[in-house]
Amino acid sequence: MNPKDQDLPRRRFLRSGLAAGAALGAAQAVRAAPSDVAAMSKADPMHVVEPFYGPHQGGIVTPQQSHAYLASLDLVTEKRDELIGLLRTWTEASARMARGATAKPLPRSDTDIAPDSADALGLGPAGLTITFGFGPGMFISNGKDRYGLARYRPEALVDLPRFNGEQLLAQKTGGDILIQACANDPQVAFHAVRQLARMGDGAVQMRWGQAGFLSGPRGQTPRNLMGFKDGTNNPSIAKPALMNQFVWAKGADAPWMHGGTYTVVRRIRITIEHWDQMKVGFQEQVFGRQKYSGAPIGKKNEFDPLDLDATDKDGNPLIPENAHVRLSNDSMNNGAQILRRSYAYNDSTDFYIERWPPWRQETEYDAGLIFIAHQGDPRTGFIPINERLSRFDMLNQFTTHVGSAIFACPPGAAEGSFIGAGLFRT
Amino acid sequence: MNPKDQDLPRRRFLRSGLAAGAALGAAQAVRAAPSDVAAMSKADPMHVVEPFYGPHQGGIVTPQQSHAYLASLDLVTEKRDELIGLLRTWTEASARMARGATAKPLPRSDTDIAPDSADALGLGPAGLTITFGFGPGMFISNGKDRYGLARYRPEALVDLPRFNGEQLLAQKTGGDILIQACANDPQVAFHAVRQLARMGDGAVQMRWGQAGFLSGPRGQTPRNLMGFKDGTNNPSIAKPALMNQFVWAKGADAPWMHGGTYTVVRRIRITIEHWDQMKVGFQEQVFGRQKYSGAPIGKKNEFDPLDLDATDKDGNPLIPENAHVRLSNDSMNNGAQILRRSYAYNDSTDFYIERWPPWRQETEYDAGLIFIAHQGDPRTGFIPINERLSRFDMLNQFTTHVGSAIFACPPGAAEGSFIGAGLFRT
Repeated sequence: MNPKDQDLPRRRFLRSGLAAGAALGAAQAVRAAPSDVAAMSKADPMHVVEPFYGPHQGGIVTPQQSHAYLASLDLVTEKRDELIGLLRTWTEASARMARGATAKPLPRSDTDIAPDSADALGLGPAGLTITFGFGPGMFISNGKDRYGLARYRPEALVDLPRFNGEQLLAQKTGGDILIQACANDPQVAFHAVRQLARMGDGAVQMRWGQAGFLSGPRGQTPRNLMGFKDGTNNPSIAKPALMNQFVWAKGADAPWMHGGTYTVVRRIRITIEHWDQMKVGFQEQVFGRQKYSGAPIGKKNEFDPLDLDATDKDGNPLIPENAHVRLSNDSMNNGAQILRRSYAYNDSTDFYIERWPPWRQETEYDAGLIFIAHQGDPRTGFIPINERLSRFDMLNQFTTHVGSAIFACPPGAAEGSFIGAGLFRT
Repeated sequence: MNPKDQDLPRRRFLRSGLAAGAALGAAQAVRAAPSDVAAMSKADPMHVVEPFYGPHQGGIVTPQQSHAYLASLDLVTEKRDELIGLLRTWTEASARMARGATAKPLPRSDTDIAPDSADALGLGPAGLTITFGFGPGMFISNGKDRYGLARYRPEALVDLPRFNGEQLLAQKTGGDILIQACANDPQVAFHAVRQLARMGDGAVQMRWGQAGFLSGPRGQTPRNLMGFKDGTNNPSIAKPALMNQFVWAKGADAPWMHGGTYTVVRRIRITIEHWDQMKVGFQEQVFGRQKYSGAPIGKKNEFDPLDLDATDKDGNPLIPENAHVRLSNDSMNNGAQILRRSYAYNDSTDFYIERWPPWRQETEYDAGLIFIAHQGDPRTGFIPINERLSRFDMLNQFTTHVGSAIFACPPGAAEGSFIGAGLFRT
């Protein structure tokens, strides 16, 4: 069969016998339910299929894939129907790509523009999830209610306050729509965003894009670029009760958000060169944890509970007052927990010229963390936690927040419907 | 055992029973000989060990790993002994990291600065190769022979000519020393460069760094970001005779380079947004190959030989005069072949402001290809091939060379010796 005539799936073995999209969807649902990290380690990560349709969007409590590409887009259309049409198109294309197919069926003729760039052909579904979020600008932009949605803006979708020390770049900040693609392959993740962005031509334009990765032995807490285990104290995605408590929105004032989540993205640049010159003991004071084991200072094992009251023989706190784990701990934040699902980023190097003596010229790593946090309400989650961290965290000596955005990620879509349908039917 | 007291390997299972570095080296040589792509597909890519020592450096004819980080460094020391000492240190650290260990043994006390950032702990050797190259500036820099090496500069290590259409950025171009780390994990690759760069503090400084990745089903030709199979016509790394003919330097005028290779690196930005708007048939004319199968135009299968004389019924060439495969083919270049071992790159997005009407503001993908080519002599390899391509290749409408560098990669080191020893003993 001529691949150009086909709804070409990315997985070679699917070419035989399975033609209809629906059949593909069923046949490929080898991991139709969210599975735990241990089970994941056994599967070929390129063959993993995460379901696209369901009560929640994927990519939020999904076991974290190894790569991500995030894009934030600005809406430029003024037409409500065009926005709805785009969300429908995106939903269908996302469901196709999640099962390993091209974004749209490939054209029958070479004289057409291909609706899929084909760079992910043959790579497999790779656990792809695509998560959509709506920024404040979808509801009101420069004072204008472009789509008649202003009155449905959830109170929890606040404009983030200015935080101490942040140095936000306009070209890495904000946006009306988030597309987060996560997959076990960088090209599969980027491919997804690239097709979706193209489909929005005329209705949206790219504001910022960001590639990320996560390296970690399966079943263990991954280490960030600072060499510390990151995510030890995350609420467990294996516990639905915790997810209901901290991650999923109740939708009190915005019923269309019931089962969705609020997502904060921060691009945090790390001065790796500086950090690497610090003594290990000091690094451990900064985090409040031991570097190699991940255990809290004074404890043995990574998952030993934090004892913030523990003191040394002189009565000084074992975990310093300004240590990262203390300031971010739920006991310091009225019990608030957020689900961090961050990726490292590595955008190569920047060249830097000092414009005063000694006119130093340096090349610096442009690397750090794409901090991604999901929560039921950022007003009790990220915002108060980061208010405290931004003022007191010792880690701030080595980190700079240069990008920021907030989105309301609606619940998942049922097959036949589309992401965000609840908002437009309100 | 306390990991801080140990020569902590990155692989957990190695912690038991194997302490001495030499024993580790032997025990971990599970893939001591270069193996073919098919064999590789069976192993867990995080557990693969590529030998560091040997007649050739790794990372040249090694089956290509999925990630890379390249760094180009400038020498700032004036002392020959310091340079030699650094190469010794780098060699030892590279051999350690290739077998999955930290760059140096971790410190016994928290009051020391750690010689390893620990972010790759637990990740496994991941097929890590580290390849060193020497740029023109090691031999002569601003007219100065800093290390007494000028007379050993190989003739093949030319300064690259200016090519038509290139738009080179100083901060992505040149450099005295190349460190190329390739691994099946992005953090393992970056980790290696980061430790080595730190060790050179005072003797070298970073000029540019570049992350890359390669997505492809194992055993198949990977597709580039333009959606075409890339590397089909590469000389086979499984054929040592071809490698001897095209890749390994003879060292005629520079015996210390015998068994080494000359490496050209080009950072080629691709206007992905523009390319995606082209009809598939036109894209195929540009490359001279069919997009989905990879077959030459007019043929059935990817590896069918190119027939550059084939014509259509009107007598026009099936493969256009300015198609990429025609212009780069060895029959057009006096039989020259180069071993391409490129990676895609994705440094997220750039924000761009037009300074004239209509004052457009756009965000563009900063993505493309880190073109890496190895050859016995660039004067008969990359240079004439790229001279022709830079003037006539239809692909130039969609690509811009923004970075460039050339290096002499010396042969491999025997255990106990160091990379480049032959040059300094000359």
